Amino acid sequence: MTDHTDLSALTSALPNDLEDVVTPWEVATTSSRGVDYDKLIDRFGCSKISDKLLKRFEKVCCQPLHHFLRRGIFFSHRDFEFIVKKVEEKKPFFMYTGRGPSSEALHLGHLIPFIFTKWLQDIFDVPLVIQLTDDEKFLWKNLTLEAVRKMTRENAKDIIAIGFDPEKTFIFSDFQYMGQSSAFYQTVCQIQRMITFNQVRGIFGFNESDCIGKIGFPAVQAAPCFAQAFPQIFGQLKTTDIGCLIPCAIDQDPYFRMTRDVAPRLGLPKPSLLYSVFFPALQGNQTKMSASNPNTSIYLTDTPKQIKNKINKYAFSGGGDTVEEHREKGGNCEVDVSIQYLRFFLDDDARLEQIRSDYSSGKLLTGELKKILIDILIRFVSDHQQRRKLVTDEILDQFMAPHPLKLPF
Amino acid sequence: MTDHTDLSALTSALPNDLEDVVTPWEVATTSSRGVDYDKLIDRFGCSKISDKLLKRFEKVCCQPLHHFLRRGIFFSHRDFEFIVKKVEEKKPFFMYTGRGPSSEALHLGHLIPFIFTKWLQDIFDVPLVIQLTDDEKFLWKNLTLEAVRKMTRENAKDIIAIGFDPEKTFIFSDFQYMGQSSAFYQTVCQIQRMITFNQVRGIFGFNESDCIGKIGFPAVQAAPCFAQAFPQIFGQLKTTDIGCLIPCAIDQDPYFRMTRDVAPRLGLPKPSLLYSVFFPALQGNQTKMSASNPNTSIYLTDTPKQIKNKINKYAFSGGGDTVEEHREKGGNCEVDVSIQYLRFFLDDDARLEQIRSDYSSGKLLTGELKKILIDILIRFVSDHQQRRKLVTDEILDQFMAPHPLKLPF
Repeated sequence: MTDHTDLSALTSALPNDLEDVVTPWEVATTSSRGVDYDKLIDRFGCSKISDKLLKRFEKVCCQPLHHFLRRGIFFSHRDFEFIVKKVEEKKPFFMYTGRGPSSEALHLGHLIPFIFTKWLQDIFDVPLVIQLTDDEKFLWKNLTLEAVRKMTRENAKDIIAIGFDPEKTFIFSDFQYMGQSSAFYQTVCQIQRMITFNQVRGIFGFNESDCIGKIGFPAVQAAPCFAQAFPQIFGQLKTTDIGCLIPCAIDQDPYFRMTRDVAPRLGLPKPSLLYSVFFPALQGNQTKMSASNPNTSIYLTDTPKQIKNKINKYAFSGGGDTVEEHREKGGNCEVDVSIQYLRFFLDDDARLEQIRSDYSSGKLLTGELKKILIDILIRFVSDHQQRRKLVTDEILDQFMAPHPLKLPF
Repeated sequence: MTDHTDLSALTSALPNDLEDVVTPWEVATTSSRGVDYDKLIDRFGCSKISDKLLKRFEKVCCQPLHHFLRRGIFFSHRDFEFIVKKVEEKKPFFMYTGRGPSSEALHLGHLIPFIFTKWLQDIFDVPLVIQLTDDEKFLWKNLTLEAVRKMTRENAKDIIAIGFDPEKTFIFSDFQYMGQSSAFYQTVCQIQRMITFNQVRGIFGFNESDCIGKIGFPAVQAAPCFAQAFPQIFGQLKTTDIGCLIPCAIDQDPYFRMTRDVAPRLGLPKPSLLYSVFFPALQGNQTKMSASNPNTSIYLTDTPKQIKNKINKYAFSGGGDTVEEHREKGGNCEVDVSIQYLRFFLDDDARLEQIRSDYSSGKLLTGELKKILIDILIRFVSDHQQRRKLVTDEILDQFMAPHPLKLPF
């Protein structure tokens, strides 16, 4: 799971008539409204989350839906009905998500799938595995093993700080877990036997000059979709009966499209997916927030002052050029990055709607809007930093040692 | 390390003017004298073991050379001087060999590198790692994990029966050891990052329709060339100073040519190689003995009666069509399979020379020659079977658990 995007290089390289670029390694569009998600769903062949499915899901949740679902931030799926049915019938499933450790500090965008996954886990109380693809980062970038190891551990601490419970959650790095369980490597080989170079070339755009590590890697990200890769978690449970739900950003779809294609041939259940939109870069919707470009991102290590400066300086505004123009014509919420960020981080629907309406009408100025966002993000990041401080190496090791998890089924 | 050869299919497919086919997966030639090893050395770019090098080696051995060296059965090398120098300077090195478990019973040809490796280890007292490429067999053949696991354990028992010492020898299967040591997977990824699809296509003849498991596999066979893949063996020793000597058949050269190309870029020592000729099929020198074709092979599980029948029925004869013709013209030792086998299994040079001379002159008849061979092979196989009976699952587990080895340096 990756992001390394040079915003200007990517977007400037796109002719206007080209379709959006969405791969696990880059996201870019020429439209200031961002990626055309309806077109993307068509292209990938996944489904929109319908109102009917949302209602059915809300019923099994026994509580109001998370604002990520209410607001279409998680907007697309594959076979989510399969998991809803498991919940309705009280049958076992687990969750899987992950990230590619690409820098020592996470940014806000990285947290979206984890925040959502945490909410799902609180409701359903199912085991969760979190994959840190240190091998992917090693294969794609010119990094040492030691550098990747350090990033991996730092990233894992940030993930833990979201509030996961080690009795229900196994966080693993590929380098570490591969050396701890033959089941993982065996599952990787089972998948690798089913997929040709031509197929990964078609799905991921690899070519003949790519290293053989990259070419084989998709099977490593696919393997945790199958409960059999985690014998220590599921013990005597029949792993072919255990479903898997993966919340992640939609750029990861190629991996799971491939996995779903392979699963029946292995006699294993297809994973179900819940896909989110991208968290936009400060500069606008044309690409997602990227850890490799500090000016596009709010990091979890940023100080209040840094957050304030970045939002004020970089957050793309949909407001008028002058106060007079703004009062007269109003702001454009669709392209305004502060409004986008509030969609993610302000869970009060009524207040968000008020801000939107005031900004559209020109009543709320860009500076005032940014002030609201800055306050919310400073609070969010500072709370995170407080929790992060409590995550010791011992706690991290506890999450990352292969261990049995509490099963509700 | 593989062999799956359908003798007739392969050799009949070869036009007369084509060069010999020698890859890790097939060996075939149209010449009844067998593979042209001089041409092969040229093509692969390895070296012939010179008399000078042999003498230098005999000196450090402090004992007569093994008949495999005296008779040119191990005939070619890469950088063997590097290891001879290590011995002369009492610097650390280890040995590595292996096989691809392809059937439950080994045949005589499989034992050649192990017999030779055992002789080397007895002299130099260095650690030895033996790789069983169960993952390769799984990826190449339509086998279940369980079937491969069973073959692997059965094959390992035969290898142990040759007389290895668990205090000096680590036998590992890729599926098992990959799940026991992160160092192995990390080394695999380090190698995979250095090699492109184009390169493995050039070296191994892979194509775009091959599965991504095959494409990545060469790095798995390369990894054990580096001491860093075995931290439990070498402990605090500086692994970048430890040489590696690999005795194997010359069809494995593509793997190690690739590894030697990668090693300096990883800052690791290039492995040294000692290459043997192939052990011919009963039907003649056109291909090697193959486990997947029972009529080409003498198995270690064969009864005395089976051995006798196979030699009498299938061992290609260089003798005359009639006794009269044989007495008159003599036998052709170059194409006679019994003579070839005696080169491997009769270590008494004087007696071998006598047999050769008597057969060439027509004094010794084919039936008499076969009788000599049958007696030797029955004794060899029966001795092996006696030792094999003593190899329990517990002893096997002792060899296959990652464990420190006795180091002479």
